[in-house]
Amino acid sequence: MTTNRKDRVAILGATGYGGGELLRLCLQDPKVEVVFATSRNRAGVPVEKVHRNLTGVSNLAFTDPTHEQLTVECDFIFGALPHGASAEVLGPLVDAGKRVIDLSGDFRLKDMDEYRKWYGREHPRPDLIASAVYGCPEVNRQAIAKARLVASPGCFATAINLALLPAASEGMLTGRPSVVALTGSSGAGATVRETTHHPVRAESARAYKVLEHQHVPECVQTLREAGSPALDGLDFTPVSIPIIRGIIAIATAKLRDPVTELQLRDLYELYYNKEYFVKTVLDREPECQSIAGTNFAEVRPRRTPAGELHAICTLDNLVKGGAGQGYQCYRLMSPNQPDETAPPLGWLGTWP
Amino acid sequence: MTTNRKDRVAILGATGYGGGELLRLCLQDPKVEVVFATSRNRAGVPVEKVHRNLTGVSNLAFTDPTHEQLTVECDFIFGALPHGASAEVLGPLVDAGKRVIDLSGDFRLKDMDEYRKWYGREHPRPDLIASAVYGCPEVNRQAIAKARLVASPGCFATAINLALLPAASEGMLTGRPSVVALTGSSGAGATVRETTHHPVRAESARAYKVLEHQHVPECVQTLREAGSPALDGLDFTPVSIPIIRGIIAIATAKLRDPVTELQLRDLYELYYNKEYFVKTVLDREPECQSIAGTNFAEVRPRRTPAGELHAICTLDNLVKGGAGQGYQCYRLMSPNQPDETAPPLGWLGTWP
Amino acid sequence: MTTNRKDRVAILGATGYGGGELLRLCLQDPKVEVVFATSRNRAGVPVEKVHRNLTGVSNLAFTDPTHEQLTVECDFIFGALPHGASAEVLGPLVDAGKRVIDLSGDFRLKDMDEYRKWYGREHPRPDLIASAVYGCPEVNRQAIAKARLVASPGCFATAINLALLPAASEGMLTGRPSVVALTGSSGAGATVRETTHHPVRAESARAYKVLEHQHVPECVQTLREAGSPALDGLDFTPVSIPIIRGIIAIATAKLRDPVTELQLRDLYELYYNKEYFVKTVLDREPECQSIAGTNFAEVRPRRTPAGELHAICTLDNLVKGGAGQGYQCYRLMSPNQPDETAPPLGWLGTWP
Amino acid sequence: MTTNRKDRVAILGATGYGGGELLRLCLQDPKVEVVFATSRNRAGVPVEKVHRNLTGVSNLAFTDPTHEQLTVECDFIFGALPHGASAEVLGPLVDAGKRVIDLSGDFRLKDMDEYRKWYGREHPRPDLIASAVYGCPEVNRQAIAKARLVASPGCFATAINLALLPAASEGMLTGRPSVVALTGSSGAGATVRETTHHPVRAESARAYKVLEHQHVPECVQTLREAGSPALDGLDFTPVSIPIIRGIIAIATAKLRDPVTELQLRDLYELYYNKEYFVKTVLDREPECQSIAGTNFAEVRPRRTPAGELHAICTLDNLVKGGAGQGYQCYRLMSPNQPDETAPPLGWLGTWP
Repeated sequence: MTTNRKDRVAILGATGYGGGELLRLCLQDPKVEVVFATSRNRAGVPVEKVHRNLTGVSNLAFTDPTHEQLTVECDFIFGALPHGASAEVLGPLVDAGKRVIDLSGDFRLKDMDEYRKWYGREHPRPDLIASAVYGCPEVNRQAIAKARLVASPGCFATAINLALLPAASEGMLTGRPSVVALTGSSGAGATVRETTHHPVRAESARAYKVLEHQHVPECVQTLREAGSPALDGLDFTPVSIPIIRGIIAIATAKLRDPVTELQLRDLYELYYNKEYFVKTVLDREPECQSIAGTNFAEVRPRRTPAGELHAICTLDNLVKGGAGQGYQCYRLMSPNQPDETAPPLGWLGTWP
Repeated sequence: MTTNRKDRVAILGATGYGGGELLRLCLQDPKVEVVFATSRNRAGVPVEKVHRNLTGVSNLAFTDPTHEQLTVECDFIFGALPHGASAEVLGPLVDAGKRVIDLSGDFRLKDMDEYRKWYGREHPRPDLIASAVYGCPEVNRQAIAKARLVASPGCFATAINLALLPAASEGMLTGRPSVVALTGSSGAGATVRETTHHPVRAESARAYKVLEHQHVPECVQTLREAGSPALDGLDFTPVSIPIIRGIIAIATAKLRDPVTELQLRDLYELYYNKEYFVKTVLDREPECQSIAGTNFAEVRPRRTPAGELHAICTLDNLVKGGAGQGYQCYRLMSPNQPDETAPPLGWLGTWP
Repeated sequence: MTTNRKDRVAILGATGYGGGELLRLCLQDPKVEVVFATSRNRAGVPVEKVHRNLTGVSNLAFTDPTHEQLTVECDFIFGALPHGASAEVLGPLVDAGKRVIDLSGDFRLKDMDEYRKWYGREHPRPDLIASAVYGCPEVNRQAIAKARLVASPGCFATAINLALLPAASEGMLTGRPSVVALTGSSGAGATVRETTHHPVRAESARAYKVLEHQHVPECVQTLREAGSPALDGLDFTPVSIPIIRGIIAIATAKLRDPVTELQLRDLYELYYNKEYFVKTVLDREPECQSIAGTNFAEVRPRRTPAGELHAICTLDNLVKGGAGQGYQCYRLMSPNQPDETAPPLGWLGTWP
Repeated sequence: MTTNRKDRVAILGATGYGGGELLRLCLQDPKVEVVFATSRNRAGVPVEKVHRNLTGVSNLAFTDPTHEQLTVECDFIFGALPHGASAEVLGPLVDAGKRVIDLSGDFRLKDMDEYRKWYGREHPRPDLIASAVYGCPEVNRQAIAKARLVASPGCFATAINLALLPAASEGMLTGRPSVVALTGSSGAGATVRETTHHPVRAESARAYKVLEHQHVPECVQTLREAGSPALDGLDFTPVSIPIIRGIIAIATAKLRDPVTELQLRDLYELYYNKEYFVKTVLDREPECQSIAGTNFAEVRPRRTPAGELHAICTLDNLVKGGAGQGYQCYRLMSPNQPDETAPPLGWLGTWP
C-alpha cells in the first residue's frame, strides 16, 4: 500500500555522475523529496550548474548538512561517496536508524580479508557487514525490501552477475569463468583524467586493471551464494572503449554437467521472465545503445562447441550498473512506493 | 479538463527515427492508444525489431491499414512520411475529418512557388495549405490547439527559429541573417548512406547543401510572420558532425535599431519565460548534450561589437526538432490531455 | 640488391578500403608504378574522387583492364576483391606467372573442407592451394619472399595470431583458446550497412558472428603449423565498437606446461625482437590509437592466476591487419625493394 | 642546394601535442637531428612514454638543458611553450643568434596594445616584434626563409586566413567577416580538463570564447597586410565538436566590388595553384578527415545570393594549424633542406 507521504531522501556526494543520476530519478519521483544533495566543495552551488540536464527544473543547491540534520530530516540516505570514505560517513547514519543505500564498494564484500586485499585498507565498520544486503534485486529482492543497509553492486559486477546468475542459481558453474567486459567513459566518473581525455579515448580501446579489477570478488561471492559454490574465481579483463554509457560483458564459463543450448535458453528465459528490467534476447545480440539511459539489461546465453556457457550482458553502467539499481533498491525498501517499474525508473530510452 | 478516454492514434511511416520517437512517447502516454504503426515494407514485423529500445514493452507490430481503417479507428494521425508522399496520404485523412500532425515538409510553406522551388515538385494538395498551422508552439500555440492539420517544423528550422524568434517578434530583424548549424547523424534518418557511414562520419565535419537547404524558406516565412517582414532571406550553412542527436545553430542577424546586450537578454528571457521547453541560458553556453533525448531547447543571445544579434540555439533534432515537437502539438490539440509538460514529454534527459 | 627499376603493379578492386590503403602506400613508394587501379563499376573515375586523401596527388583513374593487359603490363598483382570472386580472377593471373598478393580469404585455408564450411562454397581453384603462402611475415618471411601467390591474413586473424604466436611456436598451446576481439568500423568496408550506420554504431558495442567468424580456421591452422598441433579450436567472439581503425584481441589459452609470467615476457620479447612491426609492450597496455594508420602491432603477454596465457594484441585492421601486411609481403617478394621497414611502410602514426 | 649535414634542433616543451608532432616529423627527417626534447617536469622520461606512437623507434628522453647547451649544440629551436613563457625563453635564444620557430602566440601580433588586450599581459620582448615573421608560407614564404624568428600561426587563424587570403590579397575584403569554426579536441592540448572529458565531449557541441578568441587579431592583421586594409574586424565563434583532429572554418565576408562565383573560383585556384599544401576543392565540400594527420588544407569559395564571399577551409589543427606548419617554416629556413614538400611533411594521410 502506498500513501501520499513523500520519502525524504539525502544524496551524499551528489556532484558525481552517480549522484546526478540519483537526482534525475528522485527529482522526477512524486513520492520523493530530495532534502539534501550534499557536497563539501560545492556547497551553495545550484545542482543545475553541475548536472546541466537539470537546468531550470529545480532550485536545489548542494549543501553540507550535519549528521544531525541528516538523521532528523531524512528517511533514506543514498551514498555516492568514494570507497572508504563511504563506510565512515554512512556507518553512523545506519547506527542512527536511517535506511541507507550505498553505491560504493564498501559494504559489498562479506570477507574482510578480501576487502583488505582488493580495496587496500582496513574496513572501518566491519560490524555492519553482516546486516548489509547486496543490492542485486535479481537475487536478493526480499532481503533488500527489509534491509537497513544496501550495498549497491558495481557496474561491471552487475553485468557479469546478470550474465551468469541463471546458471549459477542452478549450481552449474565451476572453475574460473573468463570475462572480457567493455565500458563507456562515464564509468570513470566526473573527475577528469588522462584515460578519459577525449583525444586519447575517442579512437582507441585499451584494457586496464587486467585480472585485477576490484569487482571480481563481489561477483564470485554473489555467484557462489546464488548456488555455485564450486566457482573458483574469475579472470576478468576490463576494456575501455569510446562510448559514454554502457557495459557489455562477454563471459565464458565451464559447466558442471552437459547442457544443450536450448536448455540454456529456457533457463535464462525462465529466470528473467519475472524480472522487468532484465531482457533475455535470443534472436539478436545484446546492445549497449538499446538500453542506454535506462535501468534495463539485455542477456543472451549460448553453448560453445566445447560445451561451455557463453553469455553476453549489456546495461547502462550509470543506471542498472549504478544509481538506477540503487534507486531500484530504494523502491523495494520504501512502503510508500508502488511497483518498482513505475516511472521514472521504468522509462524507455531513446533509439538510436 | 481531461477525461479517462484515450486518444486513438496512428503513426504513419513508423519505421523511421521520427516514427520511433513518436512510438516511444505515445506508448508511454496513458492517454494514448497506438492503434496503428504503419509500414508498407515491414507490415507484420513487431515494432521492437526495428526500434530496439522498445524490446519487451509492447506487442505492437507494424501494419498497413486501409484509409477506411484509419478514419474509423483513429482520432489523431501522425505522419512521418517522406515529403511529397506525405501530402498525398494525409490529404484524404484531413478531408475525412481526422486531426493530423505531419512531420514532413509538405504543409509548412504557404507560398506554392516556394514549395515548388525548394521541394522540386508541384504540391499535391494546395487546397489544404491555408488551413495548415505551422506547428511551432512558441509562435502558434493557440492556432495549433484548434488546428485540424499541423505542419510540424523541420529540425534546423526549429533551431533557427528559436534562436531568432524573440527578436523577430519585436520587428527587429532585417537583411539576411547568416546561420551555421551543426547536426547529428540521426538527422539523416534510418536509411544508410555514405554520409552516415561510421568510418567517414565519426572523425570528420563537412558542410552540405550550402546556401541551399530546404528549411530556409520556412524560417523566413515564420520570422516574417512573427513580426519582421523586412527580413530578406537567410544564408544557411548546414554542417554534419559526429554526434547522434543534436543541433546547434549559430545565427548572426542585422538589427533595425540599436540595442544593448542587456536588452537582448531581457527580451529573450521574457519571451521564453512562459515556454517550458525553451531555456534562456545566460551564464553558460547552450549545449547539445544537456538536452539530448528531450523536448528542451537552450538559447543564448548576444550583441556583436558591430551591434548585430548573435544567437545560439541547441536542441535534439529528433525530439524538439522533430517527433517531440509534433507530439507536443498533439498534446495541445487534444482535449484529453493535461498540461503539455506532463510525462512523458517533460521527462529529463541524462547527463552526461 | 635494389635497382632503379620500378615494379609495375595492379590493384584489383581498388575502390574499397583495402584498395585505398594499397594506393596510399604504392603511390608514395618510389619503387612502385601503379599501372592499374581496377573497378568495374567506377572505371573512368579518378581515384581521388573515392579516396579523398589522394586529392590532388595523382592523376590515376580506375580502369577495367583485360586479363592480357594485366599480364603484359604488370609484375605484381594485389587482389582486394571479395571472397570467391578473388580466386576466380587471380587464379589465371597466377597461371600466367604473375606474382600475386590476395587480400581476400580465398587462399588462406589449406583444407578445402574447412573452406567449404566457413566460406559456404566450393573453392574455384583448389589446385593453387598447395603453393599459396600465408602472408604473415612473422611466421613465413622466407616463404613469402619466394612465393608466387600470397594469401594475406584476415584482420582479426592477424591480431589473434600475433597474440599467440610466440607461445604457439614453442608448442605450448593446447585446448581451445578463448578470444574476444574488438574491431573498428572500417573493418566492415566501404559499403554502407546498418551495423555501420553512424546513429546505431557511434554509442554502442555489439557482438556478432559469435563463435562463427570465418577467421577462426586460419588462426587454428597457423598456430598449429607454428608448433602447437595440440590446439583444438578457438572460441572467438568479435565485437564491433565505435572506432574507425583498430582491433584489440584479448586471448586466454591453456598451456601444456607450467610457465612463469617472466618466462612469457622473455619469450615474447625474444620472438618479436627481430620483428620491426610488432612491439612487445610490458610496462603499459597495448592501445589501438598508438598504432592507428601504421603497420605496427603491440602485444602484451601475461600469466593468469590459474596458469593460463593471457595475451593482448592491437593493430590497425586496414594496415597490419590488411593492406599494409599485404604490401609488406610485396616488399619481401620484390628484389627491387630495400628493407621492408623503409618508407612509406615504416612511417610513424600520429598521437593522439 | 642541400648537404649531408644534419640540422641540430631542439624542441622546447616537447611533452604536449605540438611537441609530439614536431618529434614525429623531426625523428623521421633524415636531415634533422633532435638534440633536445625539453621538459622541466618530465626530464629523464623517454619520449615514447608520453608520445606512444614513438614506442620503440627512438631512445630520446626529455631533458632540461641550459641556455648554453641550447645555444652551443643547436641550430634551430622550436618553441612549443605556453604563451608568455614562450617569449621569455625564446628571446635570449634569438639574441644568441639561434633561428627560432615559435608555436605560441607571443610573436604573432605587431601591435603591442593588441597583445596586451588579447593575451592579458605586457609583452616581455617587444624589441623582437619587428623582426618576427608570421609563419604563414602562403603569404610570407620569402620572409620566412630569411627569418631568425618565426611566429607560427594559430590553428583557427590558419584556417580563417586560408579561407580568406585569396580575396584579401586582391583588396576585396571589407567590413567584419563572420566566421564559425569547429575544432577537434586535440586543440585543447594534452592537459586534461572538463571540456575534453570524454563523457561530456563525445556527444555534444558547444561554442566557447564567443566573439572573444585570441586568434582574431592575428587574422585581421594578416588579412589587412595581405591587401585588404579596409577590413574592420572579425566576428568569430569557435565551436568544440567531438573529433580529435581537424578544424573547419566557415567564413562569410562582404566584398568591396561585385564578383561572380566563377571569378571567385578562378581567383582561389590561381592563388593556391602554387601552394602544394592548400587544395582548392570545387566539386565536393572540404572535409576534416581527408586531411587529418597531414599538412594539407582544403578550401572552397562561393558567392552568396547577396554577393558576399562564403568560404570553407579544413585542416588538421595539430599539423597545418600547428606543428606541421612550424616545421614547414623550418624547411623553408634551412639551407640543408630540399623542397618543403618532401617526406615526411608531404606524406599522405589515411582514408577513412
